[in-house]
Amino acid sequence: MMKLNSFGQWVLMGRRCLNPFSRACMFSSAVKQLEGGVSMVQGASRGIGLEFVRQLLEKSDKGHVVATCRNPNGATGLQELKNKFAERLDIHQLDLTIDSTIEEAAKSVKDKYGYLNLLINASGILSIPNVLRPETTLNKVQRDSLLLTYEVNAVGPILVVKHMWPLLKVGGGTGTDRDFAIVANMSARVGSIGDNGLGGWHSYRASKTALNQLTKTVSVEFARKKDPIVCILLHPGTVDTDLSRPFQGNVPEGKLFTKEFSVQKLLSIIVNAKRSDNGKFFAWDGQEIPW
Amino acid sequence: MMKLNSFGQWVLMGRRCLNPFSRACMFSSAVKQLEGGVSMVQGASRGIGLEFVRQLLEKSDKGHVVATCRNPNGATGLQELKNKFAERLDIHQLDLTIDSTIEEAAKSVKDKYGYLNLLINASGILSIPNVLRPETTLNKVQRDSLLLTYEVNAVGPILVVKHMWPLLKVGGGTGTDRDFAIVANMSARVGSIGDNGLGGWHSYRASKTALNQLTKTVSVEFARKKDPIVCILLHPGTVDTDLSRPFQGNVPEGKLFTKEFSVQKLLSIIVNAKRSDNGKFFAWDGQEIPW
Ligand SMILES: NC(=O)c1ccc[n+]([C@@H]2O[C@H](COP(=O)([O-])OP(=O)(O)OC[C@H]3O[C@@H](n4cnc5c(N)ncnc54)[C@H](OP(=O)(O)O)[C@@H]3O)[C@@H](O)[C@H]2O)c1
Ligand SMILES: NC(=O)c1ccc[n+]([C@@H]2O[C@H](COP(=O)([O-])OP(=O)(O)OC[C@H]3O[C@@H](n4cnc5c(N)ncnc54)[C@H](OP(=O)(O)O)[C@@H]3O)[C@@H](O)[C@H]2O)c1
Repeated sequence: MMKLNSFGQWVLMGRRCLNPFSRACMFSSAVKQLEGGVSMVQGASRGIGLEFVRQLLEKSDKGHVVATCRNPNGATGLQELKNKFAERLDIHQLDLTIDSTIEEAAKSVKDKYGYLNLLINASGILSIPNVLRPETTLNKVQRDSLLLTYEVNAVGPILVVKHMWPLLKVGGGTGTDRDFAIVANMSARVGSIGDNGLGGWHSYRASKTALNQLTKTVSVEFARKKDPIVCILLHPGTVDTDLSRPFQGNVPEGKLFTKEFSVQKLLSIIVNAKRSDNGKFFAWDGQEIPW
Repeated sequence: MMKLNSFGQWVLMGRRCLNPFSRACMFSSAVKQLEGGVSMVQGASRGIGLEFVRQLLEKSDKGHVVATCRNPNGATGLQELKNKFAERLDIHQLDLTIDSTIEEAAKSVKDKYGYLNLLINASGILSIPNVLRPETTLNKVQRDSLLLTYEVNAVGPILVVKHMWPLLKVGGGTGTDRDFAIVANMSARVGSIGDNGLGGWHSYRASKTALNQLTKTVSVEFARKKDPIVCILLHPGTVDTDLSRPFQGNVPEGKLFTKEFSVQKLLSIIVNAKRSDNGKFFAWDGQEIPW
């Protein structure tokens, strides 16, 4: 059954972002909603974050993107986009483990734009050579791995939301047609407790589960205060990036997505988000994932 | 409907630990299962942990209890029990933030008993004067609070399970009639994401949610390896202890439990645990809590 959503877009009930007249327009309708707005992608040096920046810039000719990363000079993908989209792309340094960099990024956006329509927390760690390795058994679980993964995957993103909150409040009525701003935090299906049938990856799982709880907690406060902000959690599927590379051997044929495909799907979820999606956890295909 | 459980006890389907012939025997049947075994209560200086130690000692005349706490000399409640139950109670120092104390506690139990039938992780932090205060809004969320609460409430307990694992494996066939050992981790209903309608308490909530995920992850590995260990998560209700004291003003009349009542209920859940309870999250009344 088709119905018109609150953005005047056709949606198929139970699925997302299908226009009855054209399959191809799915993406263009998604981008339309972001036109003129200010989007921030945190964790934009590589992988899914970089692809979000690229699609936000390339698929529309309006709107500004604030891309943050730990090391702007080393972020060659971002620098290439900067050469092409000089006016529309700002690059800021932000390291999730350093509060002052989060505060400074917030101040830059405030000074330049005064509002934010979309915040995507795209960063995440699963393994780091010689530092962090996802645990295959409880015997390999260690304090430092648990704490580091928690700090980067759960603590950092929620502090980014904290500092962008005032800008998102303004963005829920400024810069786009939408009457709310959106926070999209990148979670992972393995963060679901209900869906955990395999075990392992203790540090990563627990960090994403905690991110889910923190995002839900924040979404409750935003709703109670009637702040015009919708928070969602996203699972991108298994996507061909540095993060998944060491583990791609286990991925069934046809189940490894390109960044392009996954981000297109995720952007369509973001753009078609409704107020009632606040606090929910969606997979790339729009299906809700149990906690 | 009544049925016999795997311990030869009568249980009412859908509820727990009801004997058709006597209501009063609920507790005595509970204690019977622990007779002769070695139980460890981690976080036993005060509150619910201390009450677990007391009931394990007082309600049975067999079995040993290993009580751990950060500062044995200052743990007056434990020292009083030690005066009364010298032979049956060992007190060891264990600070969840210091790996070596966990390893040494495990070594002590290994050297003296060689196995463990029950491990209760009873410790937990919500507020610490001048250090930690549960957040009433996202604006008050801070890195240090998130990390400290995570370390004590999630990281520490799971490292205790890691180091006791070999002893629990042996305990799943030694020391009691039961053919599995039990790990009971004290969680909290506010750790449920699905049940989170109020928001707030970000650090505490996220730490308990992560503990739930870590416990579930461990339970999956134990099951896959056919280790004779059942892991459960428990919510004690709102219990009159130091932890809840600053917040008791909000507790509805009749909803604040004594330690005695809560621990009696929790012990009955523990003792009546079935293999199929592995990885589940129960409230004090035996009802499962959603993730
Ligand atoms: N790929 C998948 O299959 C998959 C599946 C499920 C969920 N996810 C989630 O999707 C998100 C994106 O993953 P991905 O595959 O794109 O990973 P990726 O290619 O490894 O990229 C990770 C990004 O996180 C950034 N980052 C790491 N530590 C940081 C810190 N301290 N401060 C700021 N940024 C930091 C990295 O920056 P540097 O370049 O500076 O290291 C990089 O931009 C993550 O949250 C991940 O957990 C991915
Ligand atoms: N009371 C409630 O209403 C309630 C509700 C839901 C869940 N819970 C959970 O139930 C459990 C017991 O709570 P409670 O009410 O008994 O709390 P409590 O009276 O405040 O006792 C907390 C215990 O945790 C110990 N602890 C704190 N930090 C530690 C560390 N670093 N290493 C080792 N032990 C440490 C404390 O030891 P020190 O004496 O050394 O500080 C104390 O024994 C907790 O997990 C709590 O989250 C309680």
